[in-house]
Amino acid sequence: MPEISKRGRDMPASPIRKLTPFAEQAKKEGKKVYHLNIGQPDIETPEIMLNALKNIDFTIWAYTPSEGIASYREKLAAYYNKLNYRIAPTDILVTNGGSEALTIAVQSCLSPGDEIIIPEPFYANYNGFVCAADAVVRPILSYIETGFALPPIAEFEKLITDRTRAIAICNPNNPTGYLYSREELESLKALCLKYDLYLFADEAYREFCYDSNTFVSPMHLDGLEQHVVIIDTVSKRYSACGARIGCLITKNKELYHTALKFAQTRLSPSLEGQIAAEAAIDTPDSYFEAVSKEYTARRNTLVEGLNKIEGVFCAVPGGAFYVVAKLPIDNADKFCQWILEEFSYNNETVMMAPATGFYSTPNVGINQVRLAYVLKQEDLRNALACLEKALKAYPGRISI
Amino acid sequence: MPEISKRGRDMPASPIRKLTPFAEQAKKEGKKVYHLNIGQPDIETPEIMLNALKNIDFTIWAYTPSEGIASYREKLAAYYNKLNYRIAPTDILVTNGGSEALTIAVQSCLSPGDEIIIPEPFYANYNGFVCAADAVVRPILSYIETGFALPPIAEFEKLITDRTRAIAICNPNNPTGYLYSREELESLKALCLKYDLYLFADEAYREFCYDSNTFVSPMHLDGLEQHVVIIDTVSKRYSACGARIGCLITKNKELYHTALKFAQTRLSPSLEGQIAAEAAIDTPDSYFEAVSKEYTARRNTLVEGLNKIEGVFCAVPGGAFYVVAKLPIDNADKFCQWILEEFSYNNETVMMAPATGFYSTPNVGINQVRLAYVLKQEDLRNALACLEKALKAYPGRISI
Repeated sequence: MPEISKRGRDMPASPIRKLTPFAEQAKKEGKKVYHLNIGQPDIETPEIMLNALKNIDFTIWAYTPSEGIASYREKLAAYYNKLNYRIAPTDILVTNGGSEALTIAVQSCLSPGDEIIIPEPFYANYNGFVCAADAVVRPILSYIETGFALPPIAEFEKLITDRTRAIAICNPNNPTGYLYSREELESLKALCLKYDLYLFADEAYREFCYDSNTFVSPMHLDGLEQHVVIIDTVSKRYSACGARIGCLITKNKELYHTALKFAQTRLSPSLEGQIAAEAAIDTPDSYFEAVSKEYTARRNTLVEGLNKIEGVFCAVPGGAFYVVAKLPIDNADKFCQWILEEFSYNNETVMMAPATGFYSTPNVGINQVRLAYVLKQEDLRNALACLEKALKAYPGRISI
Repeated sequence: MPEISKRGRDMPASPIRKLTPFAEQAKKEGKKVYHLNIGQPDIETPEIMLNALKNIDFTIWAYTPSEGIASYREKLAAYYNKLNYRIAPTDILVTNGGSEALTIAVQSCLSPGDEIIIPEPFYANYNGFVCAADAVVRPILSYIETGFALPPIAEFEKLITDRTRAIAICNPNNPTGYLYSREELESLKALCLKYDLYLFADEAYREFCYDSNTFVSPMHLDGLEQHVVIIDTVSKRYSACGARIGCLITKNKELYHTALKFAQTRLSPSLEGQIAAEAAIDTPDSYFEAVSKEYTARRNTLVEGLNKIEGVFCAVPGGAFYVVAKLPIDNADKFCQWILEEFSYNNETVMMAPATGFYSTPNVGINQVRLAYVLKQEDLRNALACLEKALKAYPGRISI
């Protein structure tokens, strides 16, 4: 039998999916499972976006330009410029979701063996994008005690080698919900300029900032234009994960030109997805206000509920719709499997993502889980009640 | 400024796009340009497929499973099994177009420095997919005199090294239109078994076989199940290039599992694209019969017309909707630019793809062009008349 490539063997399997068979089995046994494990919101997609899809009037479902439809890029640029990004449509490359934007960014900037520094815990698929380019993730620990704030710059400097090419952040952060401050971004700017590193900023959750926190992008910082690569997607902003439309933004022309070559190889993003995403830009503010209000309430319910449970701790995240919580347990992988397999309360149980999947360093975060507050408050309350009972019953409970 | 990756620098720009500015300029000057350069058919997408898009009834545009929607994979398997592929839905991985299927196949099978043998001329983007994996294309010449038949197996064997991992074919072929015979596929089978190589078969043009030629797939050959990887797409079959839905098929479970890891990293193909592609499987036979009749007539018009022009030669292709023709010229890159820039007949001109972009070996095919018969016969006749006049006027004409 022919061999699999080295990167194919090294490629990590999605850590979240390991628990899927246990959730399926729990459902078969008649248990209701609260899915706090995934980032698939239950929020409806804006009507204006769905209507654009229903009202398509092309008769030939044709390729679009590789860089994206011109009118969509123009409207996108206007959207970003309202946020003071100061970009041109020609700085935008439309992609198959944020995933492809990340793939192209990594492929364009990292040669085999090159290194990228990422604060951990981080979105698990970053491992996959970097592995696909035969490059290396150098994780840098952030801590639950500080709410997963940016680690000190001195810690970054310790990791920098002659193979370091980029730093990646997700802001607001998946999985921690942490929202980086202007000061933190300024310190990253100084670091990237000092060592001539790219700064990849995954801003999938830009619209999800709470408590009147101001969202700051590296695009707002002067003097970093040649180093910043923004990764974006319509997935979370418009609850349109299945549209697979994202983009890569850079003012670095050499990088843009390189990224475009990768984009030309795969021909184009989907026509209908771009049509719908273009329409979505006119989503009324009232939609986002309602979503923000709902998520703030959900976050409060979840975070307050978690911290009320004995031995549980989580910080109040400033954005996204995730929280990483510390539980009084021996091992989150075991616990998350056990709660699906062995436990129920009122015939209900909870699916969570063990935080180990978001850490690259071994044996870190073993008592942490990520919870996504993508369910209604009533469901969150039921899930919390279930979790509280489970923690009492769990044989691997430890006092912390 | 931070560096671009080595593969980013090596990544070839799309050769076809080099001429785009000249075509745009010609249009600005009021010339009508016949686009024989691209594979974007003017055939309408089946109504059943477009209607599925217009009638979507989801309210949350959600992710699908990474491997594709279960019902779609089931219907796809039934479609393939009608063609006697003898596969299960679990052998199918749904992708963002055939492009992503190729990307994943190459990433899964070729480590950096590994080699893939491809008969040339070949679809230019193969260079990009292989470059993205830091692997190497080893081209093997096929010849216009034989209609671009498969080169002798002995020629393949000369290229095989300890880094050879795969052979790729496109069948029917883009850019040559050549349809591989069962005998040719059997000889490739023997070769792949002898050296334990993957056989990638890009079957994007499966539905475009003319003159009652029988299409044979490597999936029809016994004993090669662990080596065959089929690349497919809905782009050409349903004239739905912009839907970006394709698939990778393999009965090799280890390879499937590896490919799935790459697919999980990018989350999922588009929801609405899969819904429409699933509906498209019920496209009535009458649609394909009409399309086949139209393309056969177009091919005959183009091929007969080309061979009537003094000094021009092309074989009669058995499939796809391309033909590679030899012209009495010094250099196809120059000629294709000249005809756009300097020439017109009845205020019309023709855009063609220089064949050099489809050859990996330098200085081969320099007097050849690829023509796509994706236009109506009347337009093809006008384009032929224009080409004939242009060849007489071209300063770089040579007698062959």
